[in-house]
Amino acid sequence: MRESGRRFETGALEAYLREHEARHLAELFEFLSIPSVSTLPEHRADVRRAAEWLAGYLERIGFDNVSVFPTELHPIVYAERIEHPGAPTALIYGHYDVQPVDPVHRWTTPPFEPAVRDGKIWARGASDDKGQVFAHLLALRALIEVEGRLPFNVKLLIEGEEEVTSVSLPKFLEENKDLIRADLVVISDTTMVAEGVPTICCGLRGLVDLEVSVYGAKRDLHSGLYGGMVANPIHVLVQLLASLRQGQGRILVPGFYDGVAELSERERREIAALPFDESAVARELGVAAFDGEPGYTPHERATVRPTVEVNGIWGGFQGEGSKTVIPSEAHAKITCRLVPDQDPVRVQEAVAAHFIKNCPPSATVKVRKGAVARPWRCDPDSPAIRAAVRALEEAYGRPVAKARLGGSIPVVETLDRMLAVPCVLIAFAQPGCNAHAPDENIPLSTLQTAPAALVRFWRNLAEADL
Amino acid sequence: MRESGRRFETGALEAYLREHEARHLAELFEFLSIPSVSTLPEHRADVRRAAEWLAGYLERIGFDNVSVFPTELHPIVYAERIEHPGAPTALIYGHYDVQPVDPVHRWTTPPFEPAVRDGKIWARGASDDKGQVFAHLLALRALIEVEGRLPFNVKLLIEGEEEVTSVSLPKFLEENKDLIRADLVVISDTTMVAEGVPTICCGLRGLVDLEVSVYGAKRDLHSGLYGGMVANPIHVLVQLLASLRQGQGRILVPGFYDGVAELSERERREIAALPFDESAVARELGVAAFDGEPGYTPHERATVRPTVEVNGIWGGFQGEGSKTVIPSEAHAKITCRLVPDQDPVRVQEAVAAHFIKNCPPSATVKVRKGAVARPWRCDPDSPAIRAAVRALEEAYGRPVAKARLGGSIPVVETLDRMLAVPCVLIAFAQPGCNAHAPDENIPLSTLQTAPAALVRFWRNLAEADL
Repeated sequence: MRESGRRFETGALEAYLREHEARHLAELFEFLSIPSVSTLPEHRADVRRAAEWLAGYLERIGFDNVSVFPTELHPIVYAERIEHPGAPTALIYGHYDVQPVDPVHRWTTPPFEPAVRDGKIWARGASDDKGQVFAHLLALRALIEVEGRLPFNVKLLIEGEEEVTSVSLPKFLEENKDLIRADLVVISDTTMVAEGVPTICCGLRGLVDLEVSVYGAKRDLHSGLYGGMVANPIHVLVQLLASLRQGQGRILVPGFYDGVAELSERERREIAALPFDESAVARELGVAAFDGEPGYTPHERATVRPTVEVNGIWGGFQGEGSKTVIPSEAHAKITCRLVPDQDPVRVQEAVAAHFIKNCPPSATVKVRKGAVARPWRCDPDSPAIRAAVRALEEAYGRPVAKARLGGSIPVVETLDRMLAVPCVLIAFAQPGCNAHAPDENIPLSTLQTAPAALVRFWRNLAEADL
Repeated sequence: MRESGRRFETGALEAYLREHEARHLAELFEFLSIPSVSTLPEHRADVRRAAEWLAGYLERIGFDNVSVFPTELHPIVYAERIEHPGAPTALIYGHYDVQPVDPVHRWTTPPFEPAVRDGKIWARGASDDKGQVFAHLLALRALIEVEGRLPFNVKLLIEGEEEVTSVSLPKFLEENKDLIRADLVVISDTTMVAEGVPTICCGLRGLVDLEVSVYGAKRDLHSGLYGGMVANPIHVLVQLLASLRQGQGRILVPGFYDGVAELSERERREIAALPFDESAVARELGVAAFDGEPGYTPHERATVRPTVEVNGIWGGFQGEGSKTVIPSEAHAKITCRLVPDQDPVRVQEAVAAHFIKNCPPSATVKVRKGAVARPWRCDPDSPAIRAAVRALEEAYGRPVAKARLGGSIPVVETLDRMLAVPCVLIAFAQPGCNAHAPDENIPLSTLQTAPAALVRFWRNLAEADL
């Protein structure tokens, strides 16, 4: 009886999602069109506009206490629907800010003019994270409009600083403990382990941000008059950066690996069993070979091993033609991905110390220490995760993958630590979603299958013993 | 009698230069105001305008056969004054094109708005090479206007591509052998070995230009999702560049030093005797220590030893804040300075081969080979150089330094090889002239002492046994 009842209701919800798909697509396009790039000061007003669009949408679909909380940088959007006082409550976290779009000339269609092609929606933020947030809003809206109520109390916390490591959020959470109190956190800001494989994330890497600058002579010099005699800041910088790793492999910074939890044989077997087709990924990326730390598989390197990456480098003449100059300075942006149980502050110190120690006396080095975020992992067998697994398997009709992922969502670890409740990370984005790169996209199914899975999840939760 | 006669005439010429200094300054300002940046396509019309200004000036001061020869890139200005048919002829070479001006925000006054401060003229091209060319024009004009004639036949060849390694000049010289035939070449495109020390250059380094590009995945990647598994083109590039040298010292490219003529003990003593105050230079440059190839002094490293310099590097995110991207490509511009008897083509091949050999299979490397120029040196005791030494010592009232310099003027070696006549390189620019850098300058004496020395040089030449 219960089974057939659930099928009937789900059918009505799915019909609702199907029937209104064009409206939902137009609404998501509105959201995606707002260039809410949180790291660029010139987009500050756009970020605010995205927050206000979201608040307006939440009011329209029936949420209460919709608020746009100001912070020192970008606002936090909050809303709730408490229909069962005293019953468990879920906090849905997401973010409405997006990454920068450069190199903008490499986009097939402009990043803030959403387009549909090949069964996908293309725009900056399509997967990270506006599209995935929107899937949640559609599930909640469908439940409210079709059934008149949610099966579970829900709070929404959608921030505008995730791409700048959630700088204001810890203070907001600290100051609003009652507001955000919940029995469960639900987040969709991850990617599936393989195309179309429903995935629950059970671990995330931490992050450390640094900028290193090398200074030589106090002005640019003619390479004919001074070349050979003075240190070239570009050359000093490339030697410092090259010294970070043994080839493309093991990181050589003393103390970098302190605290890294080695993988058990069981963990390695589980990772090896995940759907990850090395040759297909290599083909899709256009690389002839993978590279990285010896002794680990590519999938392990990208998910459960720490990294140092140079995200940007610049110095001297970059124009057309040639300029025989020794520049006076050179710079690089660096991030490290960390795994349990590395300490981000100690890693940041270790990398900075490595640069300072290895800079020759003929140059000077300065290190700007940016944000840090701790790594995170969870119990993959909690009742909340079991509820999500069942919902996804029903909606997608295939087994769910539970995996530790390589990305960093600092707030997950923060919420986990502050609320001490389970966090369920459900992915709707695909491995080829191009998050943080040109041509970001998400499948059109985000408007139907994803909310259909979430509807099931809320029902399973209402019946689960949390 | 001759001695006193020469003094009288020189006095009249010096009086002429003194009397018309304001007019000459205004004329030089006109020349310096034209942004004739030869490497930037958007300045092509400006380069042409500088050529035409020069041709107009040469006609005005009494030169014949003034021509602006088109080339595939920037025109060549030619003029002559043959007053003593059958007698020896000098070819004065110079260039009217200039280096780019970036970083433009580091100029005290705008690069193409010439200004006088602290006894110097400040503008792009002030020393390299418009100001030094103009000193020659003033000497010739003074002789023509005061004495009615030149003591020596003179041809002028002023090109617009020196800063792009004189790409059109070899073909022009080849096709105009009769036009440029001369018994002597005179060039002022070098700097003094120390402030105010009249200097004749007896050697120049060659040049090799390369651009190296490293490619990884076919698109930019999220460093969380792919970091650790794919090669980062910035990291590959910095390792390739770092592998060029042992620290900041000896170059490790196999074959790089092939053909390098080792210094004799006499040469080392002569270099050591040149005025070069290491601590003063270090202070002026704002460096705590020099660096470079072990076993050589800083002055030797910057003049008679070969180098590899990275002139520019770029890749990934350079904006404000942080972007967790693994870029799909990274690039660097490289030049090598060569000494006798390195072969530029072989050095270029060796550096390119080093990059290709050392690029890991997880990335691809491409090397664009740019222009090359051979190193050059001359007999420091030729009659023409002796004539110049006497003229400079009289005008400046102090001993002349004869030195090999670290810069490259490809045309010197080309003219030397094609005409097989002595080349006399007389410097009017100072070590702190900031050629190729912000705040380029030249002393105001360029309008008086420099042409006064050149007037004496032409007279000495007329009496010399070439």
